[in-house]
Amino acid sequence: MSTLPDLEHIRDAAARIAPYAAVTPVLRSARLDALAGAELHFKCENLQRGGAFKFRGACNAVWSLDDAQAARGVVTHSSGNHGNALAMAAATRGIPAHVVVPEGAVRAKLEAIERAGAVLHRCAPTQAAREAAAAEVQRQTGAELVHPYADARVMAGQGTLVLELVRQVEGLQALITPVGGGGLGAGCAIAAHGLDPDIAMYGAEPAGADDAARSLARGTRVADFHPDTVCDGLRALIGEPNLDALRAHRTHIVTVTDEEAIAAMKLLWQELKQVVEVSSATVLAAVLKQPEHFSGRRVGLVLSGGNVDLDTLPW
Amino acid sequence: MSTLPDLEHIRDAAARIAPYAAVTPVLRSARLDALAGAELHFKCENLQRGGAFKFRGACNAVWSLDDAQAARGVVTHSSGNHGNALAMAAATRGIPAHVVVPEGAVRAKLEAIERAGAVLHRCAPTQAAREAAAAEVQRQTGAELVHPYADARVMAGQGTLVLELVRQVEGLQALITPVGGGGLGAGCAIAAHGLDPDIAMYGAEPAGADDAARSLARGTRVADFHPDTVCDGLRALIGEPNLDALRAHRTHIVTVTDEEAIAAMKLLWQELKQVVEVSSATVLAAVLKQPEHFSGRRVGLVLSGGNVDLDTLPW
Repeated sequence: MSTLPDLEHIRDAAARIAPYAAVTPVLRSARLDALAGAELHFKCENLQRGGAFKFRGACNAVWSLDDAQAARGVVTHSSGNHGNALAMAAATRGIPAHVVVPEGAVRAKLEAIERAGAVLHRCAPTQAAREAAAAEVQRQTGAELVHPYADARVMAGQGTLVLELVRQVEGLQALITPVGGGGLGAGCAIAAHGLDPDIAMYGAEPAGADDAARSLARGTRVADFHPDTVCDGLRALIGEPNLDALRAHRTHIVTVTDEEAIAAMKLLWQELKQVVEVSSATVLAAVLKQPEHFSGRRVGLVLSGGNVDLDTLPW
Repeated sequence: MSTLPDLEHIRDAAARIAPYAAVTPVLRSARLDALAGAELHFKCENLQRGGAFKFRGACNAVWSLDDAQAARGVVTHSSGNHGNALAMAAATRGIPAHVVVPEGAVRAKLEAIERAGAVLHRCAPTQAAREAAAAEVQRQTGAELVHPYADARVMAGQGTLVLELVRQVEGLQALITPVGGGGLGAGCAIAAHGLDPDIAMYGAEPAGADDAARSLARGTRVADFHPDTVCDGLRALIGEPNLDALRAHRTHIVTVTDEEAIAAMKLLWQELKQVVEVSSATVLAAVLKQPEHFSGRRVGLVLSGGNVDLDTLPW
């Protein structure tokens, strides 16, 4: 597989993960439709196994390995949903998972990763230290690196949610996902346009981590980047192949402030009764902020995850 | 219809409300199954229209009226989910709804009732004042009283969720609902045993509002009753016909403390990613508290509603 998957890869991924992943429901709300002036269809990846879409990509990566490679296990560096997803995916195949986590990561998340059966490897909280620690695990164990987003197997897995969504919602006209590293945005854009080139693709980014918007605007990838946002799931720098995919699929990025994302999060909890992360809420915030893109249209919104610390809500 | 509905009434109700009510999903969690040592199937009435099961009963009552009666409207006394549900149900038929609300009721709830198009009538916060105010509205308008739970049409409507649940979950062995006034418990027991007399029926009650448990134990309805519980949806006194139904269907009541209900609420938010009321969480608290009733069984748990004030969470 090259650096980007195609529709066939995404279809293969869907078949590969079907025994393990959930087909997530699509929810609607008359009140949110009225607020947006559009027909909103929320794809509830907070109800995916592990509480986030990340399980799709991790599971596809794990089950793409041949038996010899699988026996040596998988490794990643992520203290968030991808680390947990890879641990859970490895467990479905009964293979070792190694997760490199920076000092200072949230304890509840680490406990979840350990509960899923992964070995934790601690490192300093810098990108260089994470990559060095993961490389060291690879060297010692022969484990396969599964990058959180700059990996065609991972993008293909994330794109599988679109295959479900177009079966669940006929005549989708626009689709919006949160954008962090861009695994979700790239996978979804490739899947959507593989099925229907007329679906308009949108990404939602926090203003404090708008590197994808700036990278698309200036034509090259922004690399001097210091994220400052409450949206902890969207702090990653957009990946190089991910950026290529967003550009190729004419993804329009809407940036929202943390305050807008938090207000949208509360609306989603109140109206949809779904526990979703503030990162997920950026998609609703974006639709409410730039209604000219969505007005009167049938819009899919990906609620990417629901792993929230209930003791420190942002409002 | 007599004071209690039968299975045919519940089937009629299902047909009557089908154009308006949601078929709510059933969710599961491997972690909660492991904690309970049972197979738990959560019927998500928090995703019902209006955010609670109450819409089922209210909608059935509204659409049971003949045209002449319907034109005069409906009235109830409830500042909670039933008032909102009746307002929304009346709107589906385009008829007037009057809701008597006690002084001091939560403003957000009153705004929702008004948004649904009902006329609010304020009264003093006592049972006698509520009933007098509702009778006065009836006298002036000819509106039909739709009691929140001691009404066969309402019970039949609530029971429709069981018709869905048995289609969604094969081989259900036990079913547990929260018990307040008993409209939900009665309707569900009648529906469940109409379909399969072997389903064991359970009710969950807060220890500070355990009048159903005490009434069943002593054989007559407890009427000297001062509820003291955080479970605001379960403070009502069990209705007379409702108590009859619980007794006839051998409903075993499990009482849980407020602390147990709050802990279960948090678990449901974390693991199911569902915003549910503390009243709803009593069912999970009960299953975790008395596992001897549920161990190894396929259990349906009714998550009755999700209308929560997100600014004052109980943990």
